[in-house]
Amino acid sequence: MKIEKSYHILPNETVLFNNRVDYCVGTGRMGLALQREYFEQLKLVQKYIGFKHIRGHGLFHDDMAIYQERRDNPWDKNSPVHIEYNFTYLDFVMDSYRELGLKPFLELGFMPKALASSENRVFVWGGHTSPPKDYKLWRDLVQATLRHLIERYGAEEATSFPVEVWNEPNLPGFWEKADMQAYFKLFDETFAAVKEVDERFKVGGPAVCGGSDELWISEFMKHCSEKRLKIDFVTRHHYATEQPDRSGHYVYQELMEPEKGFSNLKSTRDIIDGFPEYKGLPIHITEFNTSYSPDNPIHDTNLNAAFICHQLSRLGDINESYSYWTFGDIFEEVGVPFAPFHGGFGLVANGCIPKPTFWSFAFFKKLVGGECVHRSDEAVVVKDGETYKGVLWNHALKREGRELSLKFLLPLKGELCLITETVDEQTCNPLKLWHDLGEPRSLSAEQKELLRSAAYPLVESRRISSSGETELEFNLSEFGVIYFELRPAPLTPDRGYDYERSVKL
Amino acid sequence: MKIEKSYHILPNETVLFNNRVDYCVGTGRMGLALQREYFEQLKLVQKYIGFKHIRGHGLFHDDMAIYQERRDNPWDKNSPVHIEYNFTYLDFVMDSYRELGLKPFLELGFMPKALASSENRVFVWGGHTSPPKDYKLWRDLVQATLRHLIERYGAEEATSFPVEVWNEPNLPGFWEKADMQAYFKLFDETFAAVKEVDERFKVGGPAVCGGSDELWISEFMKHCSEKRLKIDFVTRHHYATEQPDRSGHYVYQELMEPEKGFSNLKSTRDIIDGFPEYKGLPIHITEFNTSYSPDNPIHDTNLNAAFICHQLSRLGDINESYSYWTFGDIFEEVGVPFAPFHGGFGLVANGCIPKPTFWSFAFFKKLVGGECVHRSDEAVVVKDGETYKGVLWNHALKREGRELSLKFLLPLKGELCLITETVDEQTCNPLKLWHDLGEPRSLSAEQKELLRSAAYPLVESRRISSSGETELEFNLSEFGVIYFELRPAPLTPDRGYDYERSVKL
Amino acid sequence: MKIEKSYHILPNETVLFNNRVDYCVGTGRMGLALQREYFEQLKLVQKYIGFKHIRGHGLFHDDMAIYQERRDNPWDKNSPVHIEYNFTYLDFVMDSYRELGLKPFLELGFMPKALASSENRVFVWGGHTSPPKDYKLWRDLVQATLRHLIERYGAEEATSFPVEVWNEPNLPGFWEKADMQAYFKLFDETFAAVKEVDERFKVGGPAVCGGSDELWISEFMKHCSEKRLKIDFVTRHHYATEQPDRSGHYVYQELMEPEKGFSNLKSTRDIIDGFPEYKGLPIHITEFNTSYSPDNPIHDTNLNAAFICHQLSRLGDINESYSYWTFGDIFEEVGVPFAPFHGGFGLVANGCIPKPTFWSFAFFKKLVGGECVHRSDEAVVVKDGETYKGVLWNHALKREGRELSLKFLLPLKGELCLITETVDEQTCNPLKLWHDLGEPRSLSAEQKELLRSAAYPLVESRRISSSGETELEFNLSEFGVIYFELRPAPLTPDRGYDYERSVKL
Amino acid sequence: MKIEKSYHILPNETVLFNNRVDYCVGTGRMGLALQREYFEQLKLVQKYIGFKHIRGHGLFHDDMAIYQERRDNPWDKNSPVHIEYNFTYLDFVMDSYRELGLKPFLELGFMPKALASSENRVFVWGGHTSPPKDYKLWRDLVQATLRHLIERYGAEEATSFPVEVWNEPNLPGFWEKADMQAYFKLFDETFAAVKEVDERFKVGGPAVCGGSDELWISEFMKHCSEKRLKIDFVTRHHYATEQPDRSGHYVYQELMEPEKGFSNLKSTRDIIDGFPEYKGLPIHITEFNTSYSPDNPIHDTNLNAAFICHQLSRLGDINESYSYWTFGDIFEEVGVPFAPFHGGFGLVANGCIPKPTFWSFAFFKKLVGGECVHRSDEAVVVKDGETYKGVLWNHALKREGRELSLKFLLPLKGELCLITETVDEQTCNPLKLWHDLGEPRSLSAEQKELLRSAAYPLVESRRISSSGETELEFNLSEFGVIYFELRPAPLTPDRGYDYERSVKL
Repeated sequence: MKIEKSYHILPNETVLFNNRVDYCVGTGRMGLALQREYFEQLKLVQKYIGFKHIRGHGLFHDDMAIYQERRDNPWDKNSPVHIEYNFTYLDFVMDSYRELGLKPFLELGFMPKALASSENRVFVWGGHTSPPKDYKLWRDLVQATLRHLIERYGAEEATSFPVEVWNEPNLPGFWEKADMQAYFKLFDETFAAVKEVDERFKVGGPAVCGGSDELWISEFMKHCSEKRLKIDFVTRHHYATEQPDRSGHYVYQELMEPEKGFSNLKSTRDIIDGFPEYKGLPIHITEFNTSYSPDNPIHDTNLNAAFICHQLSRLGDINESYSYWTFGDIFEEVGVPFAPFHGGFGLVANGCIPKPTFWSFAFFKKLVGGECVHRSDEAVVVKDGETYKGVLWNHALKREGRELSLKFLLPLKGELCLITETVDEQTCNPLKLWHDLGEPRSLSAEQKELLRSAAYPLVESRRISSSGETELEFNLSEFGVIYFELRPAPLTPDRGYDYERSVKL
Repeated sequence: MKIEKSYHILPNETVLFNNRVDYCVGTGRMGLALQREYFEQLKLVQKYIGFKHIRGHGLFHDDMAIYQERRDNPWDKNSPVHIEYNFTYLDFVMDSYRELGLKPFLELGFMPKALASSENRVFVWGGHTSPPKDYKLWRDLVQATLRHLIERYGAEEATSFPVEVWNEPNLPGFWEKADMQAYFKLFDETFAAVKEVDERFKVGGPAVCGGSDELWISEFMKHCSEKRLKIDFVTRHHYATEQPDRSGHYVYQELMEPEKGFSNLKSTRDIIDGFPEYKGLPIHITEFNTSYSPDNPIHDTNLNAAFICHQLSRLGDINESYSYWTFGDIFEEVGVPFAPFHGGFGLVANGCIPKPTFWSFAFFKKLVGGECVHRSDEAVVVKDGETYKGVLWNHALKREGRELSLKFLLPLKGELCLITETVDEQTCNPLKLWHDLGEPRSLSAEQKELLRSAAYPLVESRRISSSGETELEFNLSEFGVIYFELRPAPLTPDRGYDYERSVKL
Repeated sequence: MKIEKSYHILPNETVLFNNRVDYCVGTGRMGLALQREYFEQLKLVQKYIGFKHIRGHGLFHDDMAIYQERRDNPWDKNSPVHIEYNFTYLDFVMDSYRELGLKPFLELGFMPKALASSENRVFVWGGHTSPPKDYKLWRDLVQATLRHLIERYGAEEATSFPVEVWNEPNLPGFWEKADMQAYFKLFDETFAAVKEVDERFKVGGPAVCGGSDELWISEFMKHCSEKRLKIDFVTRHHYATEQPDRSGHYVYQELMEPEKGFSNLKSTRDIIDGFPEYKGLPIHITEFNTSYSPDNPIHDTNLNAAFICHQLSRLGDINESYSYWTFGDIFEEVGVPFAPFHGGFGLVANGCIPKPTFWSFAFFKKLVGGECVHRSDEAVVVKDGETYKGVLWNHALKREGRELSLKFLLPLKGELCLITETVDEQTCNPLKLWHDLGEPRSLSAEQKELLRSAAYPLVESRRISSSGETELEFNLSEFGVIYFELRPAPLTPDRGYDYERSVKL
Repeated sequence: MKIEKSYHILPNETVLFNNRVDYCVGTGRMGLALQREYFEQLKLVQKYIGFKHIRGHGLFHDDMAIYQERRDNPWDKNSPVHIEYNFTYLDFVMDSYRELGLKPFLELGFMPKALASSENRVFVWGGHTSPPKDYKLWRDLVQATLRHLIERYGAEEATSFPVEVWNEPNLPGFWEKADMQAYFKLFDETFAAVKEVDERFKVGGPAVCGGSDELWISEFMKHCSEKRLKIDFVTRHHYATEQPDRSGHYVYQELMEPEKGFSNLKSTRDIIDGFPEYKGLPIHITEFNTSYSPDNPIHDTNLNAAFICHQLSRLGDINESYSYWTFGDIFEEVGVPFAPFHGGFGLVANGCIPKPTFWSFAFFKKLVGGECVHRSDEAVVVKDGETYKGVLWNHALKREGRELSLKFLLPLKGELCLITETVDEQTCNPLKLWHDLGEPRSLSAEQKELLRSAAYPLVESRRISSSGETELEFNLSEFGVIYFELRPAPLTPDRGYDYERSVKL
């Protein structure tokens, strides 16, 4: 199946496109940020993409060791208890984020074991997901943590870290019984506690995932309105897959029709805008991806890369940001992965191997700063100075042999250079190489190097001499993604240099 | 034009192939080894190729500042002169070589200005190329230098550095009047001086280039025989181009039929073997390349890469080593280059961009340690454990549209993985990208990054299930070079992992 | 109080001294080896000391995720269970050790939760310390792990990793009820399982700590003898403090008279040597330190550095090795430390700040390869070529104002250079600087830099011109440690250089 | 001899002090900036000091290869000549400066050989120092170079590089015959050429050294006034030594009484301020040091460090900046140095060993941003927030046994921490260590490490509890330099931590 489309781009014509590709990215639980491999993966992400914020669970999980109840005599249960805060690991984590140019998007949760009111837990690592046994202790913890950040990084910097209250309280695994009123209580207490530390902190919620989102958003806004809470933003999640089918360590799912997801997001916008006092309030999608399962092989595929391009072209329309869940594959929610390619959420596989979707982000990042001149279902093109830059993709819900030809007529003439970077199943597909190697679970240094060498886009170029408009044609193989730049490039040969003679001999 | 060849490789059949690809590489004058960009290029070379020795001109050139004549009062021409040796820069250079795992192949020359007997000079940087004005001073210089190396690195290590006397004395630019008897005098004096320091030093000459090489080699051997000099090896150079045609900063040349060059090399072997006492004496080709001009654009092309593969498959037949001239493009013999791509000798262009020929060496290096099972005009295949590894190339003297299909029937069966790395004009051709960019002389950081990203081989893979012999077919586009590995790779999927389902959806 | 001692060292006189300072070092639980700060601390240790092995607990603890029991359907408790091994993190850890030149000294333990036969646990992180619920599963786990190491690193390399069975089974916290017969069972099963994988593995136990060590060693040897087990070595621990006094997060203890400890070690030697078939069997002290508490401030002091020097001068007498517990302060047995200086075991404090004891090891490492010419209670001196090198220390059980003057008459003459490196409370005492800063718990980057700058020895030098023997006098302030080198250093001034004139002006 | 001084610092009292310590630093000729060791030394300097500009000779010297005259046929002297500019090396150098956070302070000179009108040359490396043979060619060269910088770095950035015309034209070695009128011609032509490129460039001269400076400055200002040149600044040099006494490779000189130098600088200020249109025009001291000889051992001494502190406390009074000549010891004006310590100008010795004077700059840099509260002949103290910071020094023209005690009464109370960093002959004196080692000319890696370890200040600290003003007493040994910080440091012990108990045992 081959589809052909062609577009004529006129001078001075601009198109709306809110590109927030680099605002935020997700991460496995904060305690994992202590790891060396985690850091190396994040460093790679920051080199090519350069996100501004990072958000993940587990700030208050016990491995971060912030909240401490200790007895005078640890072996005497009657000895008095001291409540203390330990910021040793928080400093390690925050310092390393800042070393990489990142600010945290603070998700306040989960509950320290000692503060939990029940044994409700989530994930293999057992995050506590019940309300605090004592709200004063919770507020003290929140405030002590924020004050510590202010002391360490200065108030101006620390208050630029957005604050989100909890994660997916509309699921009983993440919040005991998915008790809405209990969540509102948590929100109110937390909101007040944060603002008391410094009014400049921006605070939001309810961080719900799909399913019961309309109900939750609607009730949450009503609640805020009644309580006259001047919340700073609303948060929710956005995934695009149907029910999972499990097999061994893995799950397989069908993709959802994108418009279904966008329409769901639109409902959130509409609900909020229905409250005059909250009309236009920023919505942060604090998690999104195709599948919400960290063991769905789709995440490692070229299909995923193309599908996400489509998402990146649309999510900014009504949202302030959208945070891909997650940057890397150091992640333990369903346990430590058995193999480097295991369908993890990450843009980068263990061994510092970028996956195809990594490049979807890197390519959209290159569009930042340009003015959009074209946006359609398979392409975004911007003009940046005299240069045209575009990202093109051939997405589909499943393999059906679709090839795509995109033609553009661009208002640029003269001596030009066209550069393309192609990410498709033939040119940039480390998953396939790993499969061909026999799907080894332990990679040798040599295999890692080989996989990395197969994980970068194919770069091609062409000179174009055009006296009027310039026509470009791009052929995208199934699930292919192409980044292109077309820029003026007058030939400036050094004296005596003759390229044709050099290569034609 | 399409050529097809097919080969049947039998079990236990081995073929002679003396792979000395990594023995030695050439470098611009030693003083340039102080530079930072030089070091970065050499580091890249050592990472992927890992040569053992490095050889270049100018050890005693004045920028190395080893030989010093200084007056007590620098402003009084009658004040007494002190002869001194300054090893500050020699230490910098040698330490940085050793940091990269390299030993020097010491070329003793050129003449310090203060020791030169005339104004005969070579290169833009003016290497002095006349005999010493005083042989005692020369011998003292040589001995002081070797003794310094012994003191710094130990006698065992220092005496493992081969020693060659001068460079291309058969050209009047490199040795005043190309005076053969004068060279023999230099050789004898130097040979004796070196051996006096430590008999273990291996010493050779006469480092001649083509043209008058038969005469020179022949007379040199006769001379050594008469003087009963127990020389350790013979050296010569080997280039493969015809007369140059100059245009501006550049020269263009036609390539020479390779067999003509090999036959010329054979004559050297025959002359030496004609002396019973020198029969089988090692011959080191201390320089080789296609063109001998550092401003011939051929060096940057894919044609060069394929042509050099052919050379690498043959040069070990009668020679102990062959040193590509040179590893990088920090080189000033005809002046500082004006542009990153300027036809320099280097395997790496300025900006740390590997050229196609870089990969010819990297690929042959991967064959080291394997047992050769096939060698033909366009291929070398070795067996390394259970793995077959090969380098294939499609070389020609000029562009004539030749495509090449190579088929191999290999005695390996079972579940296999075939990996190929392709370097051809479509996949790994930074020169073309640079041309398409308009041939910019000053590269931005972004352009360097882009050029590097287009300078690595395309990696592809395939699973093969074979119940008997395995047939492989490779298609090489014009001037293409392919490295392949075929290895047993039983599929070891993790529980529940189904690759087909993952990508077929 | 000032004590003076003087020693006359004669030519050709040598003294027994078995310097195994660099054989092994301890580490917090293996899962912590994934951390970035852990790696940085270990890198610093390896740069200055360069240990050969590293040993710690928790290879099989659940955070390493090696042993996995997973159900087909994780949410259905009736679905069948798969037993699997996950080596993802083991590879990370082993690769990073090898990157730093280290081999593991494998301690097999603790029990994966799923294999534990009870809830007996140890440490804040809850290591399971009960016998396996099923010995076959345990043996399979041990064998799978060793086979994985063999597959990844080769049999020759992997079998050079010593194997120790469990840790401190003579304490009920570490081994349920300190049940000796249960331990012998574990040992026998494990010993057989390891040797079945490859007979070349060296295996030992029982890794006991002080207290009941005589009984345990004695019974263990008897047991091995009866079972005719060809064990390869015996292991035990060695700490040198009395009962702890707890206050808040910290404990304080008095030091034990060293001879008491040495005599206890001697009893182990005697017991073993009492068995003819085990006479002379190597003893590895797989843990030692002053205090066994990771929250005893003594570890950060200069007193500790001097005391450990004394230990290092003696422990090799009857033992094959002695492993300092631990190299760094990433350590969580009593929880995450609240402050950079918290009395952790480490040679390095968090923030990569070497503690005084770091230098005790660095200094003894410099003696490796020399021939011992003097050993007394406060000094070891070796001769290495023509150079004399020594470590001197002024140790005591507590502060009592003891100053020490050591004089040596050495058989070296001529133009000499004496270099000293001093670590004492005045010159190399980061703990005091940290205290003076107010004991900050969160260090700024600037404070870390400052603390590091106060954590390196003071280097001093002196020229000595001696016509016969050379007399050196060293004054050690309380708890001071001095490293010295005395070496021939004839003055070789450059022409015209006059140091006296330069500095006297 | 012991001198005691005491000062009482009052609250709210401030003192004038124009601290321009980090504005600019000098460098050996620009071509040396290609070197790796140069870069490493500069990196160290930037880490601890962080200069903003760098200035040195030789931008147009032939090793930078910018100006090129090449014939169509290099071997035919009648073939036409092309004038070309080669910016390959200029890009290398500028990029590496910018990588280290530095802008160039552009000194336009010397003359390319092909443009020189005579054989007048300077230095071992033979800088051409005659006027251009053709002023049009010179202007073209200057303009092409500046335009290239604008193209590469943007006009805003490039025009922030100050431009100075030539170097020390009042010396016949640096400018043929020290011909003043010829220099004015050069200045006028160059000034016009630069401003034509972009008026925003700031341009000045005449870069004279002492001796004939009053005459030259005076005539130069007159000339500018007559020609109505709106110059942007005036430049001159400033050295502080008497006549040299040469011995072998070295010179020895007596220091000049500082006030003599300051008074000479004042005369420049007065001359300029005598011209109403130039009153207050910035003066940049584009070179200063004790000795102007790159082979005067004084540069390596502690005396130099103390003397320069005194200079740094005064030079900003009437000057906009003062550029220490030079940052490092990669420098070839009198030839390549024979030994690591050779009296080079550098703040850093070869082998990346900081000299004592390095710390004079690092210490004054720490005062930047503070408000000066005390300045006397041996001290500068500033207040930065609540912290007092000071640099103290004990300078003298020669060794005379002077010890110095400085007492300060500071208006700070409470729990305080005093930190001192001491650089004196006992604590931070790599020259002495090198001498004691026998003055080795080739340093082993081990010796470099040792020398570096002796080249950092001794850091000490003390807690002070003060209820009113705080008295500090500092004892400076001869040529000692001390940096101190006194800051509030309330003790915040962790629960149960008792420092006294920890160290008193």
